Amino acid sequence: MDVISVIRTKRDRGELSPEQIDWVIDAYTRGEVADEQMSALAMAILLNGMNRTEIARWTAAMIASGERMNFDSLSRPTADKHSTGGVGDKITLPLAPLVAACGAAVPQLSGRGLGHTGGTLDKLESIPGWRALLSNEEMLNVLDTTGAVICAAGDGLAPADKKLYALRDVTGTVEAIPLIASSIMSKKIAEGTGSLVLDVKVGTGAFMKNIEDARELASTMVALGTDSGVKTVALLTDMSTPLGLTAGNALEVRESVEVLAGGGPADVVELTIALAREMLDAAGIKDADPAKALADGSAMDVWRRMIAAQGGDPDATLPVAREQHVITAPSSGVLTRLDAYDIGVAAWRLGAGRARKEDPVQAGAGVELHAKPGDTVTAGQPLLTLHTDTPEKFEYALKSLDASYDVAPAGTAFSATPIVRERIA
Amino acid sequence: MDVISVIRTKRDRGELSPEQIDWVIDAYTRGEVADEQMSALAMAILLNGMNRTEIARWTAAMIASGERMNFDSLSRPTADKHSTGGVGDKITLPLAPLVAACGAAVPQLSGRGLGHTGGTLDKLESIPGWRALLSNEEMLNVLDTTGAVICAAGDGLAPADKKLYALRDVTGTVEAIPLIASSIMSKKIAEGTGSLVLDVKVGTGAFMKNIEDARELASTMVALGTDSGVKTVALLTDMSTPLGLTAGNALEVRESVEVLAGGGPADVVELTIALAREMLDAAGIKDADPAKALADGSAMDVWRRMIAAQGGDPDATLPVAREQHVITAPSSGVLTRLDAYDIGVAAWRLGAGRARKEDPVQAGAGVELHAKPGDTVTAGQPLLTLHTDTPEKFEYALKSLDASYDVAPAGTAFSATPIVRERIA
Repeated sequence: MDVISVIRTKRDRGELSPEQIDWVIDAYTRGEVADEQMSALAMAILLNGMNRTEIARWTAAMIASGERMNFDSLSRPTADKHSTGGVGDKITLPLAPLVAACGAAVPQLSGRGLGHTGGTLDKLESIPGWRALLSNEEMLNVLDTTGAVICAAGDGLAPADKKLYALRDVTGTVEAIPLIASSIMSKKIAEGTGSLVLDVKVGTGAFMKNIEDARELASTMVALGTDSGVKTVALLTDMSTPLGLTAGNALEVRESVEVLAGGGPADVVELTIALAREMLDAAGIKDADPAKALADGSAMDVWRRMIAAQGGDPDATLPVAREQHVITAPSSGVLTRLDAYDIGVAAWRLGAGRARKEDPVQAGAGVELHAKPGDTVTAGQPLLTLHTDTPEKFEYALKSLDASYDVAPAGTAFSATPIVRERIA
Repeated sequence: MDVISVIRTKRDRGELSPEQIDWVIDAYTRGEVADEQMSALAMAILLNGMNRTEIARWTAAMIASGERMNFDSLSRPTADKHSTGGVGDKITLPLAPLVAACGAAVPQLSGRGLGHTGGTLDKLESIPGWRALLSNEEMLNVLDTTGAVICAAGDGLAPADKKLYALRDVTGTVEAIPLIASSIMSKKIAEGTGSLVLDVKVGTGAFMKNIEDARELASTMVALGTDSGVKTVALLTDMSTPLGLTAGNALEVRESVEVLAGGGPADVVELTIALAREMLDAAGIKDADPAKALADGSAMDVWRRMIAAQGGDPDATLPVAREQHVITAPSSGVLTRLDAYDIGVAAWRLGAGRARKEDPVQAGAGVELHAKPGDTVTAGQPLLTLHTDTPEKFEYALKSLDASYDVAPAGTAFSATPIVRERIA
């Protein structure tokens, strides 16, 4: 087996054999296949694709590169959720304790943000004292005692994926559906969850800009999960405008706590409950009512215990950015568009995200929305508030907002995109 | 300017801007763009192509990465030739002294073999004492005093190409016409020749397996040369069967000396004279007769002076391999096929070529042909003789020859492919 023949097979639109896939993933993990060889192969895969058989084998080979966990020792069924990433997507924060309050065990091995989409761990780290890094034993303990845990994935799961993801990030090969699907699913299957709900975002603020690509990614992942014995369902959800009214770390924690207190923006509540129902159904839990668990405070109770179990103080005051800048509506009428990508880039530039893995993030930075598409606005009213500790970044952040919204004359018809667009099982 | 946006442009089938090309070649040469980024870009170029404007700029950027030479101090017009590489392609050896004997100055900056095609320098190094490595001053001196020089290209010409070629070799991205064309032409234009004849091989033993690809490569290179003020002509020539009756280093030197002595195989003589006529015409030399210069010994005189000027002994006995193995004709009839690629691989496996840049080659190893396609053969007569110093390699070499030839019943019609198939100017 040699790497050039593997690259040539895919370059020339051939199908990679199981032996070629097993060998190339293993040899890359061991460093025998060099980064420049794997990046050429990744580009060939991006441009020429892989079929379902190849993707399944590729995923299995990445799982085999590391350890596998299992949650068999838990008394409850496990339910996991993965989002492909969006702007203002804080759903994991209220969702994990909510589903735990309804009877499932919810292990959420999460990541940090890179680029314009935020990271769940960055958000939770704005809570004073909270720790993302747990040992496997600590993780199981938090999960067992509180019902939910949100923490960093260990280095042992799918190390091939970890290495390949870092490579794709610097070689323009992130946007390949076979590689995105196998990256996500290798970690989820290795983690050992019994069921999985995928939140596949579609729209300007998502990796998948159109519904066809989102559908292809979702059905690829559902097939991978199902074939590996994980009950898997995907919802295609809208990411043309930010979720809720905040994009930024502490800003999103505050909004999540509002949802857990029975309030919060309608779209966040709707999506949280829709995903909770799918997770409970996938886990085989029939009689729970997530709307009730938000209203009666039982989800909030799990949240408080989960945060405290990881060293966080659920009653602590959250950090606030030192400087604000308000953008007002240029005219009166109907807000017909507020672009998710532009808001995400602005939040990132204000300090909520990072350009390189080793960069720090600002807890208080981000963008606050005072109106959502469909809302009536009056000329001069606040539309967006930008938050940062480094006001010299306002100018750079404002550049990404120049064409980020449209205000149409009053009375203009507006038809909202539903939050949940499709379900794939 | 950032490398990911450059990669994405080509990945998404866009046209690279002049600024993107200049920047990426310069940044790669300086090490700011990493190998794994350039290999992803090379694969995107291989699969999505570059247009003529992009190729011209890419070539110019590679020339600008290093020094430029010039031959203005010479009293004669310069004529250069480049072959895309084939099996038994020893043409440079008789051609350079022949064209010099007819009045041109012939600088041949040549390479070593890698894979199944031989390298001109490896062949000449089988002559005791001969040195491939000359300083620029020595090179000009040999060229000025003998009319021709065949030596290694210095490190100063197109260093970006040198780095990129080594990368393509290990990443499955050699076979991209825009990259092959710009690689060859950047070195030839930087070298400063006034005219250039390209021998673009087509057939199983060549990089270009079909005439359409060969035509595309040839016309791309002719346009690049012409636009840079180098009078450039290409011949598309057959490489479905080896040139002449030998493939291997000393074996090919011996055959070249036969041609210079007025003998030698008809196909080698025909192609040598055809290329000589093109080179003389491109250099503006009208009245010379290359056939006469072979017959009257004037080309041989230049050969002897040229070899001696680089330390070689033109009268020395050439190395002979220690062991031989003869393959005989399985039946009587007409030899209708003798595959160039298979013979090239066998010669390489016998020790004439190298698998890695740093490997040594055997001077005496190779394959000798006793018949060519179209010849009548008798069952049991010698068809091929394999030569090597390492007889344990016979078995491995024989494997590549299993299906390398066809013998048809006597009287079977055979139509030979002409050596020179097309001319592109």
